[in-house]
Amino acid sequence: MKNFKITIEYDGTHFSGWQVQGQNTRTVQGEIERALETITQKRVRVFGSGRTDSGVHAKGQVAHFKSQTKMGLQEFLCALNGNLPDDVRITKIEEASPKFHAQFHVKTKTYRYTILNRAVSPVMERNFCLHVPYKLNIARMREAARLLEGRHDFRSFMTGDPGQRKAPPEKDTVRNLFSLKITRKKHFIFIDAQSNGFLYKMVRSIIGTLLFVGSGKLTPQEVAVILKSKNRTMAGDTAPAHGLCLMEVVY
Amino acid sequence: MKNFKITIEYDGTHFSGWQVQGQNTRTVQGEIERALETITQKRVRVFGSGRTDSGVHAKGQVAHFKSQTKMGLQEFLCALNGNLPDDVRITKIEEASPKFHAQFHVKTKTYRYTILNRAVSPVMERNFCLHVPYKLNIARMREAARLLEGRHDFRSFMTGDPGQRKAPPEKDTVRNLFSLKITRKKHFIFIDAQSNGFLYKMVRSIIGTLLFVGSGKLTPQEVAVILKSKNRTMAGDTAPAHGLCLMEVVY
Repeated sequence: MKNFKITIEYDGTHFSGWQVQGQNTRTVQGEIERALETITQKRVRVFGSGRTDSGVHAKGQVAHFKSQTKMGLQEFLCALNGNLPDDVRITKIEEASPKFHAQFHVKTKTYRYTILNRAVSPVMERNFCLHVPYKLNIARMREAARLLEGRHDFRSFMTGDPGQRKAPPEKDTVRNLFSLKITRKKHFIFIDAQSNGFLYKMVRSIIGTLLFVGSGKLTPQEVAVILKSKNRTMAGDTAPAHGLCLMEVVY
Repeated sequence: MKNFKITIEYDGTHFSGWQVQGQNTRTVQGEIERALETITQKRVRVFGSGRTDSGVHAKGQVAHFKSQTKMGLQEFLCALNGNLPDDVRITKIEEASPKFHAQFHVKTKTYRYTILNRAVSPVMERNFCLHVPYKLNIARMREAARLLEGRHDFRSFMTGDPGQRKAPPEKDTVRNLFSLKITRKKHFIFIDAQSNGFLYKMVRSIIGTLLFVGSGKLTPQEVAVILKSKNRTMAGDTAPAHGLCLMEVVY
């Protein structure tokens, strides 16, 4: 039995997220498991680095699965992609050590949130960015972002996970946000967040809060207060899923 | 009667090109004329800088039309965009001189052709780039591109226009290709072509020929021979429409 590590790119627009749920939902994990079953004639369970929500995209999601296939790696990759719909592709396949686990061995994850900041709504990029028609103060957003970087209890930026009845105890909500960088290219604003692990909807809660700072509803200093409060109701709205993309998972 | 100049962005995927044709084809010009009729209650003819084919995109198409509207420019822009489908947007509206003509007064046009050069097909960008899975020799493509720059008779790179019975006489096929630049960003290759005017399917014929050079089917020197031959059958295939985007029109 070999252990395979795969890197996956998907357009989340028409998916109910990464993780298999009910029978009638279209998920990325479900599509990959279906392709694997077609090729290997065996039911195979695929383990992702973590879930992505409905509408969230990925350029570098990672997963692992075990298979007894005798195909070569290139042949296996072609067979997999040939059996996947056009909104999901395996970009890389490697044989991993037998103990490699895509979720438990994550060192860092990088997400990118894309905003189109102009009066007119996006056209080509309409499924891949949030449209913000009013002017954003990037300098203030950067100030707030700097205050969020580092090791903190990010409870204020976590949404209750529908899969869990209660919020986890406090120690479970401490994360190290290695960096939160804001760059601008013409009308586009990119916010890149890198951490050793994100809480449920943490990136989108942070983005929503930064947007409040950019529009003047919050000051950077108030963001520091929100962080300390450990109270989700203090922070900004959860930004929409379609602006978010999982860029890279490092092990 | 005022003369308006508009700049238009569209995702060409679900359009039968720019220009109004029959009754049951969806065109960009048709959608804009419909929005204008809804708003002004008058039938308005919109004149584009030129046609774009079915599937071709635009970031900076330009058009003009005449209207007696009393709306302010910003209000007019909002009303127009509010009546357009989400794959087309007017990004700019200006009042032009009464004699301004979007087609006849063009000084330069810039098109960009996007190629994804990697083994695995594109996901997010699948409607906006050509997938080339085999390795391309960019240095050789650049050599060929340099030979095409400048003032030449581009008859070898023109496809017969279905709207015209015969090819135009030779003097009509001389164009000045100001620049033909190839840049690379990770797996993407961008080819930017700027001219005072392009022949029918000229950019896509040039791209098809450059792809033959990149894959080794043609040498740069053979491209010079093709240019001199003034014979379309010598050049490469017409590259697919969905990789092409009209970036800018200058007056």
